[in-house]
Amino acid sequence: MNVNGHHYRTIWLNDDGWSVGIIDQTRFPHLFETVTLATAGEAATAIRDMLVRGAPLIGVTAAYGVALAMHEDASDAALDSAYELLVKTRPTAINLKWALDEMMRSLKPLPPAARAEAAYRRAAEIADEDVAINQAIGRNGFGIIKKIAAAKPGKTVNILTHCNAGWLATVDWGTATAPIYTAHDAGIPVHVWVDETRPRNQGASLTAWELLHHGVPHTVIPDNTGGHLMQHGLVDLAIVGTDRTTAQGDVCNKIGTYLKALAAHDNGVPFYVALPSPTIDFNVVDGVKEIPIEQRGGQEVSHMTGRTGDGRIETVEIVPRGSQVANYAFDVTPARYVTGLITERGVIAANRAAIAKAFPERAKA
Amino acid sequence: MNVNGHHYRTIWLNDDGWSVGIIDQTRFPHLFETVTLATAGEAATAIRDMLVRGAPLIGVTAAYGVALAMHEDASDAALDSAYELLVKTRPTAINLKWALDEMMRSLKPLPPAARAEAAYRRAAEIADEDVAINQAIGRNGFGIIKKIAAAKPGKTVNILTHCNAGWLATVDWGTATAPIYTAHDAGIPVHVWVDETRPRNQGASLTAWELLHHGVPHTVIPDNTGGHLMQHGLVDLAIVGTDRTTAQGDVCNKIGTYLKALAAHDNGVPFYVALPSPTIDFNVVDGVKEIPIEQRGGQEVSHMTGRTGDGRIETVEIVPRGSQVANYAFDVTPARYVTGLITERGVIAANRAAIAKAFPERAKA
Repeated sequence: MNVNGHHYRTIWLNDDGWSVGIIDQTRFPHLFETVTLATAGEAATAIRDMLVRGAPLIGVTAAYGVALAMHEDASDAALDSAYELLVKTRPTAINLKWALDEMMRSLKPLPPAARAEAAYRRAAEIADEDVAINQAIGRNGFGIIKKIAAAKPGKTVNILTHCNAGWLATVDWGTATAPIYTAHDAGIPVHVWVDETRPRNQGASLTAWELLHHGVPHTVIPDNTGGHLMQHGLVDLAIVGTDRTTAQGDVCNKIGTYLKALAAHDNGVPFYVALPSPTIDFNVVDGVKEIPIEQRGGQEVSHMTGRTGDGRIETVEIVPRGSQVANYAFDVTPARYVTGLITERGVIAANRAAIAKAFPERAKA
Repeated sequence: MNVNGHHYRTIWLNDDGWSVGIIDQTRFPHLFETVTLATAGEAATAIRDMLVRGAPLIGVTAAYGVALAMHEDASDAALDSAYELLVKTRPTAINLKWALDEMMRSLKPLPPAARAEAAYRRAAEIADEDVAINQAIGRNGFGIIKKIAAAKPGKTVNILTHCNAGWLATVDWGTATAPIYTAHDAGIPVHVWVDETRPRNQGASLTAWELLHHGVPHTVIPDNTGGHLMQHGLVDLAIVGTDRTTAQGDVCNKIGTYLKALAAHDNGVPFYVALPSPTIDFNVVDGVKEIPIEQRGGQEVSHMTGRTGDGRIETVEIVPRGSQVANYAFDVTPARYVTGLITERGVIAANRAAIAKAFPERAKA
């Protein structure tokens, strides 16, 4: 989408034809800076330190990471070691492993001399596939928003979202935001309640930033607020993203998603999950029991980074010295609280049969 | 409770016999500073700017505010104007109005010459009553914790709390924390999950601070985390405070309480509200429909204050310039999600009949 009047994707091949450009998303919302990745190690660091984040973008970055490795050394050993290096960077992100497995499948049978070119080509395809998926999610989710708008003519449709499943989390368009951008561009009056999404504040720092730059009306709220808004009829629907959805439709997403789903359920507010199909993990059924939840460093909870009055970026401590902190990165929303999954193949129910029917080529018996 | 080895209450009469001492709670958790209030205006400012906060402490501060006004001018006009000034400072806090009405009832019939002394005496009584109430809540809630501890011998009892209903929110002991301090002091191994409680972070900055100083094991978590912990059996019970509870047991408390109550309900975790009876508003029945929710300044959401690496207190901006923010201060948890109300007269069910039976002298027909 647009930044300062220029169209950007979140990841691209530089003009040199081999190095890879990304946006450093840790600098948001205060600075917009791009970074060049020249090695698989730099790609791994970019994923681990969350310069890139969001399941689809992580997958594409890992794919380009393999391409960078092949550019340097296209041996079997280098391919295996790039895979090992990259797969460990974010254990919860299913797209990461999916993209890396795709790269292995494409490259392993080739002679080393053919691997670099094939790797860049396959990484670019994965990026383009992501854009196409998100555009389809946008069209399908637009149908839901259009229906709600038709039921309250002339009034604004209020949509709550959590974390950033925006274009910055993907290659372009975003997942949860694709229906919003599509509706907004079609002239439907939408307003987005943006959960700030502690501890990393991706809602306030990324979703708000990209909605602002696209001109979509929005309001940043503390994560505690959604339930109150829903009780008072101030939310027409919720759309969130997902890092991994199970075969039965349990949704693993940024910590706090589950609480919003409970509130939506309690107040009859439709709760949708924008779901690019690579995010479905058909090997997992019961998300609460089976998905390991990443615990991240305590500093993300105990400290906060922002911009001072005189424009410096400063990190401040907000928890007493001596107090312990915990930082669970994700939670799982059981399928029973999910109104529907907005996929590239249509809006489907969050249950095993519907998911298997929509993606028969991947579902397990 | 203790601070740096000295016992403090949160509000006290200074040695001069008329001015009032408080702790400046806006400086937590980084600085411990006391402030002297010399006028009703200063008391009003202390309430409005949240140097003091928490329903019981707000009430006592308002009572002392009236005493300070009487110290200066004990006329009817001064009494009325002190009331008007103080009652407007925090519209949602029921104790504020209760304490001010108490002061009016005591002072109005007296000749002006007798009012100052009577005002200080009544304010001190209200403070002492708060301590006695909290000690009784502590004993009654201790019964619940003891029972849970008995069911898992040798294991730690994990208690989740939201915001600060600790001794810093009261005159001493706290409401939600009174059972915790009582259990801890009795040798029961307890551990407290402390919601950081955005946007003002009273959990991280106040509850964590006071638990740390009292030696109670605790972990600060983002507000998004409680549901995940409950799904995984890591919370044995939740105890929160309340700013106002209705005749039918709907609980108005810090924004986000409702979301935790939903998660507790979904996971079979007992959800208790520590309820000093002055907090019950028998004039209100349906909390969601009837209680006006205070909206506070957006700066609390868009900015964050903390301590820099080199020890300065600094405020940083964390939301993009140009993005709108909203700051609803409270929400209402419907009585159906409340396991019980821990009052000074015992643990009672959150329904109209049980509340009326426990407090027949105040209940309405």
